[in-house]
Amino acid sequence: MTNHTIDAYDPHAFHDELAAHGLILPTGIRGAYGRGPVFEDILERFDALVMNSAADDGAEAMTFPPVVARTMIEKMGYLDNFPQLIGSIHSFFGTGLQAREMADQARAGERWESFLDITDLMLLPAACYPVYPMFSGLLPEGGRLVTTRNWCFRHEPSDEPTRLQSFRMREFIRVGAPDAVEAWRDSWLERGLALLRSLGLPADSDVANDPFFGRAGKMMATSQREQRLKFEIVVPVVSATEPTAVCSFNWHQEHFTSKFDISRADGSTAHTACLGFGLERVVLALLKTHGCDVNQWPAEVRAQLWS
Amino acid sequence: MTNHTIDAYDPHAFHDELAAHGLILPTGIRGAYGRGPVFEDILERFDALVMNSAADDGAEAMTFPPVVARTMIEKMGYLDNFPQLIGSIHSFFGTGLQAREMADQARAGERWESFLDITDLMLLPAACYPVYPMFSGLLPEGGRLVTTRNWCFRHEPSDEPTRLQSFRMREFIRVGAPDAVEAWRDSWLERGLALLRSLGLPADSDVANDPFFGRAGKMMATSQREQRLKFEIVVPVVSATEPTAVCSFNWHQEHFTSKFDISRADGSTAHTACLGFGLERVVLALLKTHGCDVNQWPAEVRAQLWS
Repeated sequence: MTNHTIDAYDPHAFHDELAAHGLILPTGIRGAYGRGPVFEDILERFDALVMNSAADDGAEAMTFPPVVARTMIEKMGYLDNFPQLIGSIHSFFGTGLQAREMADQARAGERWESFLDITDLMLLPAACYPVYPMFSGLLPEGGRLVTTRNWCFRHEPSDEPTRLQSFRMREFIRVGAPDAVEAWRDSWLERGLALLRSLGLPADSDVANDPFFGRAGKMMATSQREQRLKFEIVVPVVSATEPTAVCSFNWHQEHFTSKFDISRADGSTAHTACLGFGLERVVLALLKTHGCDVNQWPAEVRAQLWS
Repeated sequence: MTNHTIDAYDPHAFHDELAAHGLILPTGIRGAYGRGPVFEDILERFDALVMNSAADDGAEAMTFPPVVARTMIEKMGYLDNFPQLIGSIHSFFGTGLQAREMADQARAGERWESFLDITDLMLLPAACYPVYPMFSGLLPEGGRLVTTRNWCFRHEPSDEPTRLQSFRMREFIRVGAPDAVEAWRDSWLERGLALLRSLGLPADSDVANDPFFGRAGKMMATSQREQRLKFEIVVPVVSATEPTAVCSFNWHQEHFTSKFDISRADGSTAHTACLGFGLERVVLALLKTHGCDVNQWPAEVRAQLWS
């Protein structure tokens, strides 16, 4: 058992401190604040550092919009695993008269969503999702490596600055022979730890599980941990006893290769794995560790980011 | 009347040419394709060029997530003006049993949105929207200038590569005395034209109107044109007779300053105006004008972007 000491941490105080320094811009929406120029600068510098450390790997860069096909969310099993986090996009397909009624109801402070219907789009919950269909078919010898960065949406309104409804992830996605994929994952786990520690963050790694929904989800979480399919790199931000995940590694084995008909040329099994840095969380970990005045950060940290 | 010559342009052929060169990555969703590394490189270089040309203006940078409060969309009158373009975000708030039913229905190929309810979020339709509330209160002497860039959503599925459901806009937003705001708008209109022409684009500017919805919308569009509140910089991409808007200027007069209680210190009227570059459209205009092989682009264009 972890020794549960009482944390002095106050999420509202951290939020207010960030806002007072212009690092975040309150919008009135929980988990969807704006980011000031210094926050963004740290985020971009960190992302550049990650890309730089991965430069020799030769990842292909792909960019996708922050929306994804409804059929993709269905196919990924997201409705089974994380129904509470989905963002489904609905729009208006009606007549001029109906549009006027809808606007009138909104003006009167009444609910107006009965005028809406689903589109074929949902919000992207993880940056890597649109990448897997790009691998469909036969893989080249040695497999493939892709990097992508995107805004992700998860419906979990919170006042905790590190728990955002809309945030950015830098991801790397590897597909290929099972041993190659596992070795790649392990080498990144080391590299990720070294990278974050070089920025003065007290980072550690651990076996983890996804926040699967409901009773069946508890069993899936246990199985995921037992099979060591998910690792996280964590840093104390909001709590020393419950550190915040800033980087996570998922080994999907054949889950996506079978869903998207991804095969190796010799017919043997292909696996996928991905790792993602939660970019806002890294920024917040740095601000919590080194303070809200970046000019006062340790020289070696500044040198790493602003070299 | 414009002389409507028949355009040889074929949107599917342009789409396929872009895909064949790896510039775009088809996803199966209309207006939401992925972008390859060269497409992204052009986009980032152009954005950097814009930022560089505006460097002396000293705009404050703000960054927002691509989602916005439902109340903001209501307050902006967006339901009156563009109901057909909205993206309303719905999620699941139910029990474990309901979640299982929902996932089962999805698996059976049935519709499952009856299990969803609205969140307090919608998709951002224009990058500048979250900026106006940041101006609430008294303006400093001289007003303010902000820049922001974001993914925007507009529900208008299309096979036309330049008409995207999810795309990026670089925006500048000016608030201050009416004459200062208008002068700023006019100077950018010149600067924007010069910038785009320096990249070899046959750019022109013209009075324009927003695609207001319905019958009442037609009158609003006419009034907007008569008052010369909207200008666009257009480039022939898909058609010579109906060139594509790559940059648009909106002068809102007191529309937003009254909505968000924005005042000048001396109590006199404050106006806002914004201008936005449609970043994907600029990239597509460049590709259409100079071809899909960037190595073959004119040397002076390459020098401008990759200097």
